[in-house]
Amino acid sequence: MLDLIYLVAITAEAMTGALSAGRRRMDLFGVIIIACVTALGGGSLRDIVLGHYPLGWVAHPEYLAYTIGAAIAATVLASRMHRLRRAFLWLDALGLVAFSLIGCAIARDTGHAPTIIVISGMLTGAFGGVLRDVLCNEIPLVFQKELYAIVSMLTGIAYLALLQLGVSENRCVLACLGGGFALRMLAIRYEWEMPKFVYQHP
Amino acid sequence: MLDLIYLVAITAEAMTGALSAGRRRMDLFGVIIIACVTALGGGSLRDIVLGHYPLGWVAHPEYLAYTIGAAIAATVLASRMHRLRRAFLWLDALGLVAFSLIGCAIARDTGHAPTIIVISGMLTGAFGGVLRDVLCNEIPLVFQKELYAIVSMLTGIAYLALLQLGVSENRCVLACLGGGFALRMLAIRYEWEMPKFVYQHP
Amino acid sequence: MLDLIYLVAITAEAMTGALSAGRRRMDLFGVIIIACVTALGGGSLRDIVLGHYPLGWVAHPEYLAYTIGAAIAATVLASRMHRLRRAFLWLDALGLVAFSLIGCAIARDTGHAPTIIVISGMLTGAFGGVLRDVLCNEIPLVFQKELYAIVSMLTGIAYLALLQLGVSENRCVLACLGGGFALRMLAIRYEWEMPKFVYQHP
Repeated sequence: MLDLIYLVAITAEAMTGALSAGRRRMDLFGVIIIACVTALGGGSLRDIVLGHYPLGWVAHPEYLAYTIGAAIAATVLASRMHRLRRAFLWLDALGLVAFSLIGCAIARDTGHAPTIIVISGMLTGAFGGVLRDVLCNEIPLVFQKELYAIVSMLTGIAYLALLQLGVSENRCVLACLGGGFALRMLAIRYEWEMPKFVYQHP
Repeated sequence: MLDLIYLVAITAEAMTGALSAGRRRMDLFGVIIIACVTALGGGSLRDIVLGHYPLGWVAHPEYLAYTIGAAIAATVLASRMHRLRRAFLWLDALGLVAFSLIGCAIARDTGHAPTIIVISGMLTGAFGGVLRDVLCNEIPLVFQKELYAIVSMLTGIAYLALLQLGVSENRCVLACLGGGFALRMLAIRYEWEMPKFVYQHP
Repeated sequence: MLDLIYLVAITAEAMTGALSAGRRRMDLFGVIIIACVTALGGGSLRDIVLGHYPLGWVAHPEYLAYTIGAAIAATVLASRMHRLRRAFLWLDALGLVAFSLIGCAIARDTGHAPTIIVISGMLTGAFGGVLRDVLCNEIPLVFQKELYAIVSMLTGIAYLALLQLGVSENRCVLACLGGGFALRMLAIRYEWEMPKFVYQHP
């Protein structure tokens, strides 16, 4: 099931990446690259940091086909994307939580410490967006907006805690998927934010 | 022959990197770093993504000497560089195509799938410039300008197709080098561009 | 002793990272990420470039606790940080030199060539700040300000030269730590700078 959600997630993330590139007036090639980086960059960064080779899309080049297809679809459907904004927020929230759980599962399978497992989930869930913003020459949104990476972190902690309590892996994933998704939607709905730190001295 | 062209290419790329840094008023150290990143960053990124260790310049530190020498030469010759602009475009185009072929050959030697071979060529050929622009705090030119990374992609596809047809490796390289170079020069001459994707919604 | 100085250094670097994030009005999560990247990013980049796995903080997750603690402390103490500016410059200089020596020692232990050993020190010492500035959407200070990365380079060269002359590892470290620190403080005091390269053509 996580596999199916993963495909939905990379498609959704690729589309948000393509729209970002479109806001920066990039050409079709730039759109495709930004889409691939947004959808697959977080997982790639995780694999590079953990030394977990080959990277997901190197072993499964078909993932690239999905993201490139999604990017091209986004440019074609762009005029209607605005109205689909609500659907996108849902897919993006689902993607964030699914990516995070996949990242946690991979680090757990390779025997890492709990802290590293949670960070692996955050790298997978939130850092595709960070790489997208760096390539678009913006301060990463993740560092400034409503709860996003924190949702990823809490999902990872809940996943580890439930496993520790003896809950089966499948139930864990389902519970965390639901809980993380709900938390993210609530954060958007009520504009929950982390406290901002403003420092004025030079 | 590809080795010789490689040395010409890293020298040319290092010089374009140094001029980029000069436009941003960097100091000599920044100029050297940007030159090294432009010339060697694409290949380094490819090796990190493919898990292909040691990186080229770690195994051959003399490559660093070439790029550093080229960077310093660029600062000395800067006032005359403007007039050499035409020669630079030629060297840069040759470098793009040579880097791409080298990237394809390395991924092919390590047994990767055709898609990954072409991407390996693109990472090698076009992403040194992407890293340069990220460090200079600009939106990567590659995502906005005339055909550049696409030349790299088409060169890689042609290389694989010719090999598949039974053409010998040496002839393949020569044909792709000529074809890719011609395509890039035509793209500059006639300002061929990819279609731009402009998305205005917030 | 280098271990103790290393802890002081990551704490100091994490605090400078947190203040940087505060200048960009990031939220608490952004502050923590930028602090971690500033303190641990240089060493991580070195390990990824050299293929030296696991990364330091993956093997020792407690390093993350120090940097996160230092980041939170910086936000709490921010109003008083301004007055501590002098102390910070000292700690940052100490951190730069200690990071550089640690980077050199790791590359030396894994049998790399002298050039690569010095570069390993520079990646460790100076590139945490480069990653910080890229994520904060600024041109890296290191490429523009007074002697910084050059201090790292000269420390590395002195370290290798003294070892070559038969000086014991401990004395080498002490001498380079003192010499590098003094050089950095002198560079700040007298505003020593590398020559700037300014190139105006388009």
